[in-house]
Amino acid sequence: MRITLIGSGNVATHLGAALKNAGHYIVQVYSRNPQNAALLAYHLKAEAISDISEVNPDTDLFIISTADDAIDGIAAQLAYHQIPIVHTSGATPIQVLLKHTEHAGVFYPLQTFSKTKEVDFHTVPLCVEGAYEHLTAMLKELAQTISNNVDVVSSDKRKILHLSAVFACNFPNYLYYTAQQLLAAHHLDFNLLRPLIIETAEKVQVQFPANVQTGPAIRNDKKTMEAHIGLLNNEPVLKEIYELLSQCIIKMGEGQHRVE
Amino acid sequence: MRITLIGSGNVATHLGAALKNAGHYIVQVYSRNPQNAALLAYHLKAEAISDISEVNPDTDLFIISTADDAIDGIAAQLAYHQIPIVHTSGATPIQVLLKHTEHAGVFYPLQTFSKTKEVDFHTVPLCVEGAYEHLTAMLKELAQTISNNVDVVSSDKRKILHLSAVFACNFPNYLYYTAQQLLAAHHLDFNLLRPLIIETAEKVQVQFPANVQTGPAIRNDKKTMEAHIGLLNNEPVLKEIYELLSQCIIKMGEGQHRVE
Repeated sequence: MRITLIGSGNVATHLGAALKNAGHYIVQVYSRNPQNAALLAYHLKAEAISDISEVNPDTDLFIISTADDAIDGIAAQLAYHQIPIVHTSGATPIQVLLKHTEHAGVFYPLQTFSKTKEVDFHTVPLCVEGAYEHLTAMLKELAQTISNNVDVVSSDKRKILHLSAVFACNFPNYLYYTAQQLLAAHHLDFNLLRPLIIETAEKVQVQFPANVQTGPAIRNDKKTMEAHIGLLNNEPVLKEIYELLSQCIIKMGEGQHRVE
Repeated sequence: MRITLIGSGNVATHLGAALKNAGHYIVQVYSRNPQNAALLAYHLKAEAISDISEVNPDTDLFIISTADDAIDGIAAQLAYHQIPIVHTSGATPIQVLLKHTEHAGVFYPLQTFSKTKEVDFHTVPLCVEGAYEHLTAMLKELAQTISNNVDVVSSDKRKILHLSAVFACNFPNYLYYTAQQLLAAHHLDFNLLRPLIIETAEKVQVQFPANVQTGPAIRNDKKTMEAHIGLLNNEPVLKEIYELLSQCIIKMGEGQHRVE
Protein backbone atom coordinates (compact mmCIF):
# COMPACT_ATOMS: atom_id res chain seq x y z
CA MET A 1 0.00 0.00 0.00
CA ARG A 2 0.93 3.64 -0.45
CA ILE A 3 0.80 5.29 2.95
CA THR A 4 1.22 8.88 4.14
CA LEU A 5 2.31 9.53 7.71
CA ILE A 6 1.08 12.63 9.46
CA GLY A 7 3.33 13.12 12.48
CA SER A 8 6.92 12.22 13.31
CA GLY A 9 6.77 11.24 16.97
CA ASN A 10 7.28 7.89 18.68
CA VAL A 11 4.26 6.16 17.15
CA ALA A 12 4.87 7.50 13.63
CA THR A 13 8.53 6.47 13.86
CA HIS A 14 7.92 2.88 14.96
CA LEU A 15 4.79 2.35 12.88
CA GLY A 16 6.44 3.83 9.81
CA ALA A 17 9.44 1.52 10.17
CA ALA A 18 7.19 -1.52 10.60
CA LEU A 19 5.11 -0.62 7.54
CA LYS A 20 8.16 0.02 5.43
CA ASN A 21 9.76 -3.27 6.55
CA ALA A 22 6.56 -5.07 5.58
CA GLY A 23 6.96 -3.75 2.01
CA HIS A 24 4.60 -0.80 2.02
CA TYR A 25 5.58 2.44 0.38
CA ILE A 26 5.67 5.52 2.59
CA VAL A 27 4.76 8.37 0.26
CA GLN A 28 5.29 11.34 2.55
CA VAL A 29 5.99 12.23 6.16
CA TYR A 30 4.38 15.41 7.44
CA SER A 31 5.48 17.27 10.52
CA ARG A 32 5.01 20.92 11.48
CA ASN A 33 8.70 20.84 12.29
CA PRO A 34 10.62 20.51 8.97
CA GLN A 35 13.66 18.90 10.63
CA ASN A 36 11.56 16.21 12.29
CA ALA A 37 9.77 15.55 9.02
CA ALA A 38 13.08 15.33 7.16
CA LEU A 39 14.67 12.95 9.68
CA LEU A 40 11.86 10.42 9.67
CA ALA A 41 11.30 10.77 5.90
CA TYR A 42 15.00 10.04 5.38
CA HIS A 43 14.75 6.77 7.33
CA LEU A 44 11.60 5.77 5.48
CA LYS A 45 12.82 6.91 2.05
CA ALA A 46 9.79 9.17 1.85
CA GLU A 47 9.23 12.81 0.96
CA ALA A 48 9.21 15.25 3.87
CA ILE A 49 6.59 17.98 4.05
CA SER A 50 5.84 20.54 6.71
CA ASP A 51 2.87 22.20 5.05
CA ILE A 52 -0.25 20.07 5.06
CA SER A 53 -1.38 21.61 1.76
CA GLU A 54 1.55 19.81 0.11
CA VAL A 55 0.15 16.33 0.69
CA ASN A 56 0.35 14.10 -2.33
CA PRO A 57 -3.14 12.76 -3.10
CA ASP A 58 -1.62 9.71 -4.81
CA THR A 59 -1.79 7.67 -1.61
CA ASP A 60 -4.08 4.95 -0.22
CA LEU A 61 -4.16 5.99 3.41
CA PHE A 62 -3.42 8.90 5.72
CA ILE A 63 -2.23 7.83 9.16
CA ILE A 64 -2.46 10.65 11.70
CA SER A 65 -0.05 10.07 14.62
CA THR A 66 0.03 13.49 16.18
CA ALA A 67 -0.94 14.84 19.57
CA ASP A 68 -4.58 13.97 20.20
CA ASP A 69 -5.79 17.56 20.06
CA ALA A 70 -4.28 18.10 16.59
CA ILE A 71 -6.21 15.23 14.97
CA ASP A 72 -9.41 17.17 14.40
CA GLY A 73 -7.77 20.08 12.62
CA ILE A 74 -5.58 17.89 10.43
CA ALA A 75 -8.49 15.67 9.42
CA ALA A 76 -10.40 18.79 8.41
CA GLN A 77 -7.60 19.70 6.01
CA LEU A 78 -7.18 16.19 4.53
CA ALA A 79 -10.82 15.18 4.14
CA TYR A 80 -11.48 16.67 0.72
CA HIS A 81 -9.07 14.17 -0.88
CA GLN A 82 -11.66 11.43 -0.23
CA ILE A 83 -8.87 9.09 0.82
CA PRO A 84 -9.22 6.97 4.00
CA ILE A 85 -7.93 8.71 7.13
CA VAL A 86 -7.05 6.85 10.32
CA HIS A 87 -5.61 8.05 13.59
CA THR A 88 -3.52 6.02 16.04
CA SER A 89 -4.87 7.45 19.27
CA GLY A 90 -6.24 5.28 22.05
CA ALA A 91 -8.18 8.12 23.59
CA THR A 92 -9.80 9.63 20.49
CA PRO A 93 -13.14 8.27 19.21
CA ILE A 94 -13.62 7.64 15.50
CA GLN A 95 -16.28 10.39 15.56
CA VAL A 96 -13.58 13.05 15.51
CA LEU A 97 -12.70 11.90 11.99
CA LEU A 98 -16.30 11.16 10.97
CA LYS A 99 -17.10 14.85 11.36
CA HIS A 100 -14.90 15.40 8.31
CA THR A 101 -14.98 12.22 6.22
CA GLU A 102 -16.92 9.01 5.86
CA HIS A 103 -13.61 7.24 5.11
CA ALA A 104 -12.61 7.24 8.77
CA GLY A 105 -10.81 4.63 10.81
CA VAL A 106 -8.53 3.91 13.73
CA PHE A 107 -5.23 2.07 13.76
CA TYR A 108 -4.25 1.91 17.42
CA PRO A 109 -1.05 0.12 18.47
CA LEU A 110 -1.41 -0.75 22.15
CA GLN A 111 2.20 -0.32 23.16
CA THR A 112 4.50 2.23 24.75
CA PHE A 113 7.06 3.56 22.30
CA SER A 114 10.34 5.35 22.88
CA LYS A 115 12.52 6.56 20.07
CA THR A 116 15.59 5.00 21.68
CA LYS A 117 14.23 1.46 21.91
CA GLU A 118 13.39 -0.90 19.08
CA VAL A 119 9.99 -2.59 19.25
CA ASP A 120 9.11 -5.92 17.68
CA PHE A 121 5.89 -4.87 16.03
CA HIS A 122 4.81 -8.45 15.37
CA THR A 123 3.82 -8.78 19.04
CA VAL A 124 2.17 -5.35 19.36
CA PRO A 125 -1.62 -5.60 19.68
CA LEU A 126 -3.10 -3.53 16.85
CA CYS A 127 -6.69 -2.43 17.41
CA VAL A 128 -8.39 -1.36 14.20
CA GLU A 129 -11.78 0.17 13.53
CA GLY A 130 -13.34 1.33 10.26
CA ALA A 131 -16.38 3.48 9.62
CA TYR A 132 -17.72 0.80 7.27
CA GLU A 133 -17.10 -2.87 6.76
CA HIS A 134 -14.89 -2.64 3.71
CA LEU A 135 -12.60 -0.12 5.40
CA THR A 136 -12.43 -2.23 8.56
CA ALA A 137 -11.40 -5.22 6.44
CA MET A 138 -8.76 -3.18 4.63
CA LEU A 139 -7.30 -1.88 7.91
CA LYS A 140 -7.32 -5.36 9.40
CA GLU A 141 -5.46 -6.71 6.40
CA LEU A 142 -2.92 -3.91 6.57
CA ALA A 143 -2.46 -4.45 10.31
CA GLN A 144 -1.85 -8.16 9.76
CA THR A 145 1.09 -7.36 7.50
CA ILE A 146 2.95 -5.93 10.51
CA SER A 147 1.45 -7.62 13.59
CA ASN A 148 0.32 -11.10 14.60
CA ASN A 149 -1.97 -9.57 17.18
CA VAL A 150 -4.76 -7.73 15.37
CA ASP A 151 -8.24 -7.08 16.78
CA VAL A 152 -11.22 -5.08 15.61
CA VAL A 153 -12.07 -2.86 18.58
CA SER A 154 -14.86 -0.28 18.77
CA SER A 155 -14.19 3.26 19.99
CA ASP A 156 -16.07 2.54 23.23
CA LYS A 157 -13.94 -0.48 24.00
CA ARG A 158 -10.77 1.30 22.91
CA LYS A 159 -11.42 3.94 25.57
CA ILE A 160 -11.38 1.21 28.20
CA LEU A 161 -8.24 -0.33 26.71
CA HIS A 162 -6.52 3.04 26.80
CA LEU A 163 -7.54 3.58 30.42
CA SER A 164 -6.39 0.11 31.41
CA ALA A 165 -3.06 0.79 29.70
CA VAL A 166 -2.54 3.70 32.09
CA PHE A 167 -2.94 1.28 35.00
CA ALA A 168 -0.74 -1.38 33.38
CA CYS A 169 2.04 0.85 32.06
CA ASN A 170 2.11 4.50 33.11
CA PHE A 171 1.35 3.92 36.79
CA PRO A 172 3.76 0.98 37.23
CA ASN A 173 6.49 3.07 35.60
CA TYR A 174 5.82 5.83 38.12
CA LEU A 175 6.09 3.29 40.94
CA TYR A 176 9.44 2.15 39.52
CA TYR A 177 10.43 5.80 39.74
CA THR A 178 9.40 6.07 43.40
CA ALA A 179 11.34 2.89 44.18
CA GLN A 180 14.40 4.30 42.45
CA GLN A 181 14.09 7.56 44.37
CA LEU A 182 13.83 5.70 47.67
CA LEU A 183 16.98 3.75 46.83
CA ALA A 184 18.84 6.83 45.65
CA ALA A 185 18.07 8.63 48.91
CA HIS A 186 19.88 5.78 50.72
CA HIS A 187 22.72 5.45 48.23
CA LEU A 188 21.42 2.16 46.87
CA ASP A 189 21.66 1.25 43.20
CA PHE A 190 18.53 0.89 41.04
CA ASN A 191 20.19 -2.15 39.46
CA LEU A 192 19.24 -4.05 42.59
CA LEU A 193 15.58 -3.76 41.59
CA ARG A 194 15.78 -4.30 37.85
CA PRO A 195 15.63 -8.13 37.95
CA LEU A 196 12.61 -7.92 40.27
CA ILE A 197 10.81 -5.54 37.91
CA ILE A 198 11.26 -7.73 34.86
CA GLU A 199 10.34 -10.89 36.75
CA THR A 200 7.12 -9.27 38.02
CA ALA A 201 6.13 -8.41 34.45
CA GLU A 202 7.13 -11.85 33.15
CA LYS A 203 5.00 -13.64 35.72
CA VAL A 204 1.79 -12.10 34.40
CA GLN A 205 2.64 -13.10 30.83
CA VAL A 206 1.41 -16.59 31.68
CA GLN A 207 -0.55 -16.05 34.89
CA PHE A 208 -3.25 -13.68 36.04
CA PRO A 209 -1.98 -10.98 38.41
CA ALA A 210 -4.26 -12.07 41.27
CA ASN A 211 -2.56 -15.46 41.30
CA VAL A 212 0.98 -14.10 41.64
CA GLN A 213 0.48 -11.24 44.08
CA THR A 214 3.23 -11.26 46.72
CA GLY A 215 4.31 -8.90 49.49
CA PRO A 216 3.16 -7.94 52.97
CA ALA A 217 -0.31 -6.66 52.02
CA ILE A 218 -1.57 -9.88 50.41
CA ARG A 219 -0.42 -11.75 53.55
CA ASN A 220 -2.04 -9.02 55.66
CA ASP A 221 1.32 -8.80 57.44
CA LYS A 222 0.52 -5.77 59.58
CA LYS A 223 3.88 -5.66 61.33
CA THR A 224 5.83 -5.29 58.07
CA MET A 225 3.35 -2.78 56.65
CA GLU A 226 3.61 -0.66 59.82
CA ALA A 227 7.41 -0.78 59.62
CA HIS A 228 7.27 0.32 55.97
CA ILE A 229 4.89 3.16 56.75
CA GLY A 230 7.24 4.23 59.54
CA LEU A 231 10.06 4.48 56.99
CA LEU A 232 7.87 6.81 54.90
CA ASN A 233 7.12 9.31 57.66
CA ASN A 234 8.94 12.07 55.82
CA GLU A 235 7.33 11.17 52.50
CA PRO A 236 3.63 11.95 52.85
CA VAL A 237 2.81 11.25 49.20
CA LEU A 238 4.59 7.89 49.12
CA LYS A 239 2.94 7.05 52.44
CA GLU A 240 -0.45 7.81 50.94
CA ILE A 241 0.29 5.61 47.91
CA TYR A 242 1.54 2.85 50.18
CA GLU A 243 -1.53 2.92 52.39
CA LEU A 244 -4.03 3.15 49.55
CA LEU A 245 -2.55 0.34 47.45
CA SER A 246 -1.94 -1.86 50.48
CA GLN A 247 -5.57 -1.51 51.55
CA CYS A 248 -6.62 -2.45 48.00
CA ILE A 249 -4.39 -5.53 48.02
CA ILE A 250 -5.70 -6.61 51.42
CA LYS A 251 -9.23 -6.35 50.03
CA MET A 252 -8.21 -8.26 46.91
CA GLY A 253 -6.87 -10.99 49.20
CA GLU A 254 -10.19 -11.08 50.98
CA GLY A 255 -11.93 -11.33 47.60
CA GLN A 256 -13.91 -8.17 48.27
CA HIS A 257 -12.82 -6.04 45.37
CA ARG A 258 -14.33 -6.84 42.02
CA VAL A 259 -14.79 -4.34 39.23
CA GLU A 260 -18.39 -4.69 37.95
CA MET B 1 29.16 -26.51 51.79
CA ARG B 2 26.77 -28.56 53.92
CA ILE B 3 23.57 -26.57 54.24
CA THR B 4 20.37 -27.10 56.21
CA LEU B 5 17.15 -25.46 54.99
CA ILE B 6 14.58 -24.40 57.53
CA GLY B 7 11.36 -23.84 55.60
CA SER B 8 9.89 -25.26 52.42
CA GLY B 9 8.15 -22.26 50.82
CA ASN B 10 8.95 -20.35 47.63
CA VAL B 11 12.30 -18.97 48.77
CA ALA B 12 13.50 -22.26 50.28
CA THR B 13 12.46 -24.12 47.12
CA HIS B 14 14.27 -21.84 44.66
CA LEU B 15 17.27 -21.16 46.88
CA GLY B 16 17.66 -24.86 47.70
CA ALA B 17 17.61 -25.77 44.01
CA ALA B 18 20.19 -23.10 43.17
CA LEU B 19 22.50 -24.22 45.99
CA LYS B 20 22.18 -27.87 45.04
CA ASN B 21 22.84 -27.06 41.38
CA ALA B 22 25.97 -25.17 42.43
CA GLY B 23 27.30 -28.34 44.05
CA HIS B 24 26.42 -27.75 47.68
CA TYR B 25 25.03 -30.55 49.81
CA ILE B 26 21.62 -30.00 51.35
CA VAL B 27 21.73 -31.93 54.60
CA GLN B 28 18.14 -31.56 55.76
CA VAL B 29 14.93 -29.74 54.96
CA TYR B 30 12.78 -28.79 57.91
CA SER B 31 9.11 -27.88 57.69
CA ARG B 32 6.40 -28.03 60.33
CA ASN B 33 4.37 -29.79 57.68
CA PRO B 34 5.95 -33.26 57.10
CA GLN B 35 4.60 -33.51 53.56
CA ASN B 36 6.10 -30.18 52.54
CA ALA B 37 9.41 -31.15 54.11
CA ALA B 38 9.36 -34.50 52.32
CA LEU B 39 8.53 -33.00 48.93
CA LEU B 40 11.32 -30.42 48.92
CA ALA B 41 13.79 -32.84 50.55
CA TYR B 42 13.04 -35.34 47.80
CA HIS B 43 13.92 -32.81 45.10
CA LEU B 44 17.10 -31.79 46.91
CA LYS B 45 18.10 -35.37 47.86
CA ALA B 46 18.08 -34.27 51.49
CA GLU B 47 16.60 -35.67 54.68
CA ALA B 48 13.17 -34.33 55.66
CA ILE B 49 12.44 -33.40 59.24
CA SER B 50 9.39 -31.82 60.84
CA ASP B 51 10.69 -31.64 64.39
CA ILE B 52 13.34 -28.99 64.90
CA SER B 53 14.99 -31.07 67.63
CA GLU B 54 15.98 -33.56 64.90
CA VAL B 55 18.37 -31.18 63.16
CA ASN B 56 21.67 -32.76 62.26
CA PRO B 57 24.50 -30.65 63.77
CA ASP B 58 26.87 -31.89 61.05
CA THR B 59 26.14 -28.87 58.86
CA ASP B 60 27.89 -25.60 58.01
CA LEU B 61 24.90 -23.30 57.82
CA PHE B 62 21.27 -23.04 58.79
CA ILE B 63 19.20 -21.02 56.33
CA ILE B 64 15.85 -19.95 57.80
CA SER B 65 13.30 -19.23 55.03
CA THR B 66 10.08 -19.26 57.00
CA ALA B 67 7.42 -16.65 57.66
CA ASP B 68 9.09 -13.62 59.23
CA ASP B 69 7.43 -14.07 62.62
CA ALA B 70 8.72 -17.63 62.95
CA ILE B 71 12.41 -16.67 62.60
CA ASP B 72 12.89 -15.65 66.23
CA GLY B 73 11.54 -18.86 67.73
CA ILE B 74 13.43 -21.10 65.32
CA ALA B 75 16.72 -19.28 65.90
CA ALA B 76 16.21 -19.75 69.66
CA GLN B 77 16.04 -23.51 69.13
CA LEU B 78 19.02 -23.73 66.78
CA ALA B 79 21.45 -21.39 68.51
CA TYR B 80 23.03 -23.85 70.94
CA HIS B 81 24.62 -25.75 68.03
CA GLN B 82 27.02 -22.78 67.57
CA ILE B 83 26.62 -23.09 63.79
CA PRO B 84 26.03 -19.97 61.64
CA ILE B 85 22.36 -19.10 61.19
CA VAL B 86 21.07 -16.83 58.43
CA HIS B 87 17.58 -15.81 57.48
CA THR B 88 16.37 -14.79 54.02
CA SER B 89 13.92 -12.06 55.02
CA GLY B 90 14.06 -8.56 53.63
CA ALA B 91 12.06 -7.11 56.49
CA THR B 92 13.84 -8.74 59.45
CA PRO B 93 16.94 -7.11 60.98
CA ILE B 94 19.95 -9.23 61.86
CA GLN B 95 19.29 -8.35 65.51
CA VAL B 96 16.50 -10.93 65.68
CA LEU B 97 19.17 -13.62 65.25
CA LEU B 98 21.82 -11.84 67.32
CA LYS B 99 19.59 -12.18 70.37
CA HIS B 100 20.31 -15.90 70.18
CA THR B 101 23.70 -16.36 68.53
CA GLU B 102 26.78 -14.39 67.57
CA HIS B 103 26.98 -16.48 64.37
CA ALA B 104 24.18 -14.52 62.74
CA GLY B 105 23.74 -13.42 59.16
CA VAL B 106 21.33 -12.57 56.39
CA PHE B 107 21.08 -14.07 52.90
CA TYR B 108 18.37 -12.05 51.16
CA PRO B 109 17.48 -12.79 47.54
CA LEU B 110 15.78 -9.69 46.15
CA GLN B 111 13.32 -11.40 43.85
CA THR B 112 9.70 -12.52 43.75
CA PHE B 113 9.40 -16.30 43.68
CA SER B 114 6.51 -18.52 42.68
CA LYS B 115 6.67 -22.28 42.90
CA THR B 116 5.30 -22.60 39.38
CA LYS B 117 7.96 -20.46 37.66
CA GLU B 118 11.65 -21.19 37.29
CA VAL B 119 14.04 -18.41 38.24
CA ASP B 120 17.53 -17.94 36.87
CA PHE B 121 19.29 -17.40 40.16
CA HIS B 122 22.41 -16.05 38.47
CA THR B 123 20.66 -12.74 37.90
CA VAL B 124 18.99 -12.52 41.31
CA PRO B 125 20.53 -9.81 43.52
CA LEU B 126 21.68 -11.51 46.72
CA CYS B 127 22.14 -9.18 49.67
CA VAL B 128 24.27 -10.69 52.41
CA GLU B 129 25.18 -9.50 55.88
CA GLY B 130 27.23 -11.19 58.59
CA ALA B 131 27.57 -10.37 62.27
CA TYR B 132 31.37 -10.38 61.85
CA GLU B 133 33.74 -9.99 58.96
CA HIS B 134 34.65 -13.63 58.53
CA LEU B 135 31.01 -14.65 58.40
CA THR B 136 30.22 -11.86 55.92
CA ALA B 137 33.04 -13.10 53.70
CA MET B 138 31.82 -16.69 53.94
CA LEU B 139 28.25 -15.69 53.03
CA LYS B 140 29.48 -13.55 50.17
CA GLU B 141 31.51 -16.43 48.80
CA LEU B 142 28.56 -18.79 49.10
CA ALA B 143 26.27 -16.27 47.41
CA GLN B 144 28.71 -15.90 44.53
CA THR B 145 28.44 -19.61 43.79
CA ILE B 146 24.79 -19.10 42.80
CA SER B 147 24.48 -15.45 41.73
CA ASN B 148 26.49 -12.94 39.72
CA ASN B 149 24.81 -10.13 41.59
CA VAL B 150 26.01 -10.20 45.21
CA ASP B 151 26.12 -7.21 47.53
CA VAL B 152 26.89 -6.75 51.20
CA VAL B 153 23.92 -4.80 52.54
CA SER B 154 23.32 -3.69 56.13
CA SER B 155 20.01 -4.35 57.89
CA ASP B 156 19.15 -0.65 57.72
CA LYS B 157 19.65 -0.52 53.97
CA ARG B 158 17.92 -3.86 53.49
CA LYS B 159 14.79 -2.37 55.08
CA ILE B 160 14.77 0.30 52.38
CA LEU B 161 15.40 -2.26 49.66
CA HIS B 162 12.49 -4.32 50.91
CA LEU B 163 10.24 -1.27 50.98
CA SER B 164 11.29 -0.23 47.49
CA ALA B 165 10.58 -3.77 46.27
CA VAL B 166 6.96 -3.30 47.36
CA PHE B 167 6.78 -0.23 45.10
CA ALA B 168 8.59 -1.96 42.23
CA CYS B 169 6.86 -5.35 42.37
CA ASN B 170 3.83 -5.76 44.64
CA PHE B 171 2.14 -2.49 43.71
CA PRO B 172 2.69 -2.79 39.94
CA ASN B 173 1.27 -6.32 40.09
CA TYR B 174 -1.82 -4.96 41.82
CA LEU B 175 -2.16 -2.36 39.07
CA TYR B 176 -1.93 -5.13 36.47
CA TYR B 177 -4.81 -6.72 38.36
CA THR B 178 -6.90 -3.56 38.24
CA ALA B 179 -6.23 -3.27 34.49
CA GLN B 180 -7.27 -6.86 33.99
CA GLN B 181 -10.46 -6.30 35.99
CA LEU B 182 -11.32 -3.22 33.92
CA LEU B 183 -10.86 -5.20 30.72
CA ALA B 184 -12.83 -8.18 32.02
CA ALA B 185 -15.75 -5.92 32.92
CA HIS B 186 -15.88 -4.90 29.26
CA HIS B 187 -15.25 -8.37 27.84
CA LEU B 188 -11.75 -7.48 26.70
CA ASP B 189 -8.89 -9.95 26.89
CA PHE B 190 -5.95 -9.39 29.26
CA ASN B 191 -3.71 -10.65 26.44
CA LEU B 192 -4.12 -7.23 24.85
CA LEU B 193 -2.12 -5.71 27.72
CA ARG B 194 0.57 -8.33 28.22
CA PRO B 195 2.99 -6.98 25.57
CA LEU B 196 2.63 -3.49 27.06
CA ILE B 197 3.41 -4.77 30.56
CA ILE B 198 6.58 -6.55 29.53
CA GLU B 199 7.74 -3.63 27.37
CA THR B 200 7.24 -1.19 30.27
CA ALA B 201 9.43 -3.37 32.50
CA GLU B 202 12.03 -3.87 29.76
CA LYS B 203 12.40 -0.15 29.18
CA VAL B 204 13.64 0.47 32.72
CA GLN B 205 16.22 -2.29 32.42
CA VAL B 206 18.39 0.17 30.52
CA GLN B 207 16.80 3.52 31.31
CA PHE B 208 15.69 5.32 34.44
CA PRO B 209 11.90 5.37 34.86
CA ALA B 210 11.69 9.17 34.81
CA ASN B 211 13.11 9.16 31.27
CA VAL B 212 10.54 6.74 29.87
CA GLN B 213 7.35 7.93 31.55
CA THR B 214 4.49 8.06 29.05
CA GLY B 215 0.75 8.62 29.27
CA PRO B 216 -1.63 11.53 29.75
CA ALA B 217 -0.37 12.64 33.18
CA ILE B 218 3.23 13.28 32.15
CA ARG B 219 1.90 15.36 29.23
CA ASN B 220 -0.53 17.04 31.66
CA ASP B 221 -3.22 16.13 29.13
CA LYS B 222 -6.20 17.21 31.22
CA LYS B 223 -8.81 16.30 28.63
CA THR B 224 -7.76 12.64 28.51
CA MET B 225 -7.39 12.42 32.28
CA GLU B 226 -10.89 13.84 32.76
CA ALA B 227 -12.29 11.34 30.26
CA HIS B 228 -10.55 8.50 32.13
CA ILE B 229 -11.86 9.68 35.48
CA GLY B 230 -15.34 9.85 33.95
CA LEU B 231 -15.02 6.16 32.99
CA LEU B 232 -14.22 5.35 36.63
CA ASN B 233 -17.28 7.02 38.14
CA ASN B 234 -18.60 3.72 39.43
CA GLU B 235 -15.21 2.67 40.74
CA PRO B 236 -14.36 5.00 43.61
CA VAL B 237 -11.20 3.14 44.62
CA LEU B 238 -9.78 3.00 41.10
CA LYS B 239 -10.70 6.65 40.68
CA GLU B 240 -8.76 7.49 43.85
CA ILE B 241 -5.72 5.55 42.61
CA TYR B 242 -5.98 7.22 39.21
CA GLU B 243 -6.17 10.72 40.67
CA LEU B 244 -3.43 10.22 43.23
CA LEU B 245 -0.90 8.65 40.83
CA SER B 246 -1.72 11.10 38.05
CA GLN B 247 -1.11 14.04 40.39
CA CYS B 248 2.23 12.49 41.35
CA ILE B 249 3.22 12.03 37.71
CA ILE B 250 2.25 15.62 36.88
CA LYS B 251 4.48 16.77 39.75
CA MET B 252 7.27 14.50 38.56
CA GLY B 253 6.96 16.12 35.13
CA GLU B 254 7.25 19.52 36.75
CA GLY B 255 10.33 18.31 38.63
CA GLN B 256 8.74 19.06 41.98
CA HIS B 257 8.81 15.66 43.58
CA ARG B 258 12.13 14.44 44.83
CA VAL B 259 12.55 12.00 47.69
CA GLU B 260 15.10 13.47 50.07
